Amino acid sequence: MTRGTRKVNRPATRHAAAGTAVGAGSNLRAMDPRTGLPVVGMVGAGQLARMTYQAAIALGQSLRILAGSPDDGAALVAAEVVLGDHTSYADLAGFAAGCDVLTFDHEHVPTELVRKLADEGHAVCPPAEALRYAQDKQAMRERLAELGVPVPRWARVSSVAELAAFGTGVGWPVVLKAARGGYDGKGVWVVEAAPDAAPIVASGVPLIAEERVLLVRELSALVARSPYGQGAAWPVVETVQADGICVEVLAPAPALPTELAERAQALALRIAAELGVVGVLAVELFETAGGRLLVNELAMRPHNSGHWTIEGARTSQFEQHLRAVLDYPLGSTTLAAPAVAMANVLGDQSSGDQSSSDRSRGAGIDERVHHLMARWPDAKIHLYGKAIRPGRKVGHVTVLGADLAEVRERAVAAARYLSGGVLP
Amino acid sequence: MTRGTRKVNRPATRHAAAGTAVGAGSNLRAMDPRTGLPVVGMVGAGQLARMTYQAAIALGQSLRILAGSPDDGAALVAAEVVLGDHTSYADLAGFAAGCDVLTFDHEHVPTELVRKLADEGHAVCPPAEALRYAQDKQAMRERLAELGVPVPRWARVSSVAELAAFGTGVGWPVVLKAARGGYDGKGVWVVEAAPDAAPIVASGVPLIAEERVLLVRELSALVARSPYGQGAAWPVVETVQADGICVEVLAPAPALPTELAERAQALALRIAAELGVVGVLAVELFETAGGRLLVNELAMRPHNSGHWTIEGARTSQFEQHLRAVLDYPLGSTTLAAPAVAMANVLGDQSSGDQSSSDRSRGAGIDERVHHLMARWPDAKIHLYGKAIRPGRKVGHVTVLGADLAEVRERAVAAARYLSGGVLP
Repeated sequence: MTRGTRKVNRPATRHAAAGTAVGAGSNLRAMDPRTGLPVVGMVGAGQLARMTYQAAIALGQSLRILAGSPDDGAALVAAEVVLGDHTSYADLAGFAAGCDVLTFDHEHVPTELVRKLADEGHAVCPPAEALRYAQDKQAMRERLAELGVPVPRWARVSSVAELAAFGTGVGWPVVLKAARGGYDGKGVWVVEAAPDAAPIVASGVPLIAEERVLLVRELSALVARSPYGQGAAWPVVETVQADGICVEVLAPAPALPTELAERAQALALRIAAELGVVGVLAVELFETAGGRLLVNELAMRPHNSGHWTIEGARTSQFEQHLRAVLDYPLGSTTLAAPAVAMANVLGDQSSGDQSSSDRSRGAGIDERVHHLMARWPDAKIHLYGKAIRPGRKVGHVTVLGADLAEVRERAVAAARYLSGGVLP
Repeated sequence: MTRGTRKVNRPATRHAAAGTAVGAGSNLRAMDPRTGLPVVGMVGAGQLARMTYQAAIALGQSLRILAGSPDDGAALVAAEVVLGDHTSYADLAGFAAGCDVLTFDHEHVPTELVRKLADEGHAVCPPAEALRYAQDKQAMRERLAELGVPVPRWARVSSVAELAAFGTGVGWPVVLKAARGGYDGKGVWVVEAAPDAAPIVASGVPLIAEERVLLVRELSALVARSPYGQGAAWPVVETVQADGICVEVLAPAPALPTELAERAQALALRIAAELGVVGVLAVELFETAGGRLLVNELAMRPHNSGHWTIEGARTSQFEQHLRAVLDYPLGSTTLAAPAVAMANVLGDQSSGDQSSSDRSRGAGIDERVHHLMARWPDAKIHLYGKAIRPGRKVGHVTVLGADLAEVRERAVAAARYLSGGVLP
């Protein structure tokens, strides 16, 4: 039944018109016979998949998950988990066979395998042609340059001499980045002088060097785009980093001039359209003193800078990502409260042993949750089911209210308490 | 490890002080070794368990589900599903063995089995001593009478003659109810004259007769109570029924005098405390012309009149139920918007065959979702994964906004469209 149904109601031209990579098999919808709804498969089983799973349930779905380990955060909660290697084409293709559309919890599936999946007839969102710009920092910068999108000055460097020349031009320190695979501060180094980077350069990892921008703050412009070409932008947020890890998100970005906010949203929507993104796109931005916006990084999936949308926006980034990859119309991105603050919960030094609850640093996780709820009854807790390791993102807390400074203070205090077990 | 941990941090006296039925094994916490958090098991796998499952994920949980069928709504999405019969003690005890606390998606577990589970050392919330009043309409009315809580005039009837005598006293028509097991209009009959009820009386089902109250409208006072004795009340809502099934919920109840709202909340909190409820308690109320409140029914679990809380309140009834049964502090019940409307999606006559999308009555479910999203981008859709049968609750739609009449109109139109596939 499904073939005819999809043909009648969702002509292939609708996909094709938007220029996304929908293969020959796009009308061979598997559909879930139990629900009459299409089936989404997500490659990767971290907290993004876990939170997407929650959103999927409301839409009548049971998101399928390709997990590397049964202990992954999403694998702990999903009904249909396939264990497999996201770098194995056989595993990916086997997983895709039962799904109407494939999407991703991370950027680590090799681009050529994403392309091959589409070539073999699987619907993949975002398509390889877009995803490569979230996977390869050099390709992204080259493409954005073609589009006239401002980025920090950068150069491909493959020797200490090239790095030295670049640094002489833009000034030290310089930011050195692995062209592929970095996240949460991994694969990023701040280099004071070229010789310091010799071991990194010698490792053979493809690298780009970037000027260290004198920034006012970091912003994130989060948007979504459907295959049909519909775009939707959430309010622009401020992100606060520590050691390269996002630790706080403030929505909307405080005191951001409307003109700048609209420029950031328009930029993100334009990038999504030009690159053919399907799903959520996070555009990480540097705001400079002169009111300039420079693109720092792109992510084509739900993003840490959008966790606040679960309670803070009418449509969460997780639901929106599903709507986009299912080619449903996108949902309202209206704020649910005037001010929303999200703070990440990072594993602290003392928290490696979860079973220990009676230590000087504080209580075990169950007791921490208990005390947090008692002190902040309106704080929204999100735990990812991950083993706690120092510095690892294991959850987040969101607080909504009327005053951003006030909700920020509470979100940060609550998250810090969950991290360390010490009440402020 | 867990025994000591629980002893240190959660003394048994804390449970005992609140008078709830925590058995000898209450300190033998299973705890999930993967997360360091206690494990909740829910008996029953309908939409209430499905939506509780979503809330559980945020709290770091993977709610365990005892399902009668692998196709039940919650069984489709939960990672840990045990197939079993909720009327079999062996099945219940086997399921309980892996859980720190047991709770329920429905009232259909025989009271004596709930009591035996507690006697055998399993923590059960709500305890049998409370749950029986949600299971047995006669016991509930007798107990509420003892507490001085107003209920419609009623009588136990076991013959047509007794029914005739009751009807002569209170006036016809009379409402006849099965003492146990009814829901959604099932087990409830409006009787115009005693002889009409002869077949029902002859069936041998224990029955109560109740006056048909001249009511202004129906209200629901939803509260939660923890073993510690903490209570929390959401704003009182108006419920709209059709054929005995709740079809709309308006939050807060429009034009409800503050005094009456506070009285309803206080009444519900008092009932929860007096009966020793742990978890969510819904008190269904009749509002009469004179500003009287009569208790119609009790439910000790998340309830249809609380679905609006998922987006409409800071803490949803599903999260709150989990917080209560885990003996965590309860969450804020503040409204997330000035006006919230929820409308149920009922399977319509044409929707038995989900695979048929090209019929005169409208589109298949996937296309209906599509069109609904296009027309109402801020409507929140909840589909329960259930096969669509005429009159069956298969989902709901919630709309938030500033004006109750406006959000109600949109929620009802959206739900009706999902039901019937016809745009208004």
